[in-house]
Amino acid sequence: MKILILGGGGMIGQKLARHLLEHGLGGQGDLTIISHDIGFAPDAAPVGDQRIGNLADPGVAEALAGERPDLIFHLASVVSGEAETDFDKGWRVNMQANWALLEALRAQHQASGGAYRPRLVFTSSIAVFGAPYPGKIGDEFLLAPQTSYGAQKLITETMISDFSRKGFIDGISIRLPTICVRPGKANLAASSFFSGIIREPLNGQEAILPVADDVRHWLASPRSAVGFVIHAAGLDTALLQGRRALNLPGVSVTVAQQIEALRDIAGEAAVALIRRQPDPAIQKIVSGWPRDFAPERALALGFRADADFHAIVQSYIDEDLPRR
Amino acid sequence: MKILILGGGGMIGQKLARHLLEHGLGGQGDLTIISHDIGFAPDAAPVGDQRIGNLADPGVAEALAGERPDLIFHLASVVSGEAETDFDKGWRVNMQANWALLEALRAQHQASGGAYRPRLVFTSSIAVFGAPYPGKIGDEFLLAPQTSYGAQKLITETMISDFSRKGFIDGISIRLPTICVRPGKANLAASSFFSGIIREPLNGQEAILPVADDVRHWLASPRSAVGFVIHAAGLDTALLQGRRALNLPGVSVTVAQQIEALRDIAGEAAVALIRRQPDPAIQKIVSGWPRDFAPERALALGFRADADFHAIVQSYIDEDLPRR
Repeated sequence: MKILILGGGGMIGQKLARHLLEHGLGGQGDLTIISHDIGFAPDAAPVGDQRIGNLADPGVAEALAGERPDLIFHLASVVSGEAETDFDKGWRVNMQANWALLEALRAQHQASGGAYRPRLVFTSSIAVFGAPYPGKIGDEFLLAPQTSYGAQKLITETMISDFSRKGFIDGISIRLPTICVRPGKANLAASSFFSGIIREPLNGQEAILPVADDVRHWLASPRSAVGFVIHAAGLDTALLQGRRALNLPGVSVTVAQQIEALRDIAGEAAVALIRRQPDPAIQKIVSGWPRDFAPERALALGFRADADFHAIVQSYIDEDLPRR
Repeated sequence: MKILILGGGGMIGQKLARHLLEHGLGGQGDLTIISHDIGFAPDAAPVGDQRIGNLADPGVAEALAGERPDLIFHLASVVSGEAETDFDKGWRVNMQANWALLEALRAQHQASGGAYRPRLVFTSSIAVFGAPYPGKIGDEFLLAPQTSYGAQKLITETMISDFSRKGFIDGISIRLPTICVRPGKANLAASSFFSGIIREPLNGQEAILPVADDVRHWLASPRSAVGFVIHAAGLDTALLQGRRALNLPGVSVTVAQQIEALRDIAGEAAVALIRRQPDPAIQKIVSGWPRDFAPERALALGFRADADFHAIVQSYIDEDLPRR
């Protein structure tokens, strides 16, 4: 089985590649993995075939589709903050490059006389929604993105659904919760603090909390994210009945509940490293984000999230906390 | 005021142009109207500036945007049936051409130092929805198109919302009900019979009814459609609060109720011209269409539909029935 990971150099892409190398996929161990990204860290997962390139460049999508991977994990994206500040880059990478990929896959489908029809797992985002929200967002709630990133994700979902309905590919879009605890350094994303207030204290460092303790958000661990994309890869898409984009399960917690979990696991000394420094700009952005979901379809289809926020913290400690 | 009508040669575009020529717009009578389409009938509305061209061709969107119209009515589209049979043409015209238009308008906005920010009224469709439906589709119901046409409409709506949020344009997308009674000849659209069973008998001709009498659908007259786009042109878009796509009001009726209205207005002899000829293919397509809406936002914003189906029939008689 030939697998292509787009965005293979990213955090989820790396964890996915390592998982596939260790565990295979659906009982199959003879996997050929092509990992594609604009760059890879020196300690990247040891897949045999590491490709450096930009999917938005002419010919790149066509070359990758020409290898006819059986399964494509499409995790590549300009992140939310960058899509907002660099409008051109966001639309070029998060929309036009995806169109080019779908068209290249359709060309392969047609060149094969219809035999080639790859499974495509696309990681979408809860950014496809926009405030105001009901208490819990149901599976039939309006899609109304309020960021360029969210608009681009919705558009790509919609293209994937139509190309799939036509039989050119067999796609599924999964709307990931905010991933937490992200390993590594803090970044400029407005959501960075959700990870930072856990990660930094566990590493003995100070963390900044820019919002109030009663802010609620929808989270999943990187471990769950890898589980989600693998589950999506093996799903019988006939069960989706034409609605090929799914809200995934997650954990809805307030910042106060996050801090309580940190206290339970790492003690008062860790909590003391969180410094409150309100940031009205971040508060405003975060106030527009979803807080809670009732992801009944995804649960019925077997997607499983972390049990609670304690499990999310423990997942970071198990997988990513640098050993002393 | 300079007004550009894209799809100006079509049925709604022609009625809109005539309305503007007769009544002006919002009290303004000094209108410059550019009417653009791939072609015009010999008896087209006498606007001074009739342009023949294809928005999907290179440079066309840029040239039109370069005229800096204050108001753009974007009614141009490959129709539903053709977008389904000609996949390439549908996406080229209904998605990529719209992207080109938005990019061209953004370039003018930027070249003007931000002063140029046109109102764009885009006629979207209830095809952005997909079955199964609730009894009445509310304003926060899921967008899940099940046709290429519906996917392209949703994608264009999403682009327009994001370009508007960024301040490059001031857009609004209005999801028209199925337009009935369409004047002229029957066409190959699966929805053609909704008009045909009224129009043909009123013209003394036989009409084919391919579905059961209890089929329910969501309709508006061409007169209402013109009213909708004009109301959208004058709306304070701040009231949309970031949700720039609206479900419009319409009339929800069964085929049986349509026929009763025809009987009331034109008598038993007209009804006798309807011939039942079940068509499983059309029945299947129509079974996936929306049947009823609760368009509360649009009503609160002042959009008004026909009073009932009798009014829709009367509108055809007043505006379009060929005089004996």
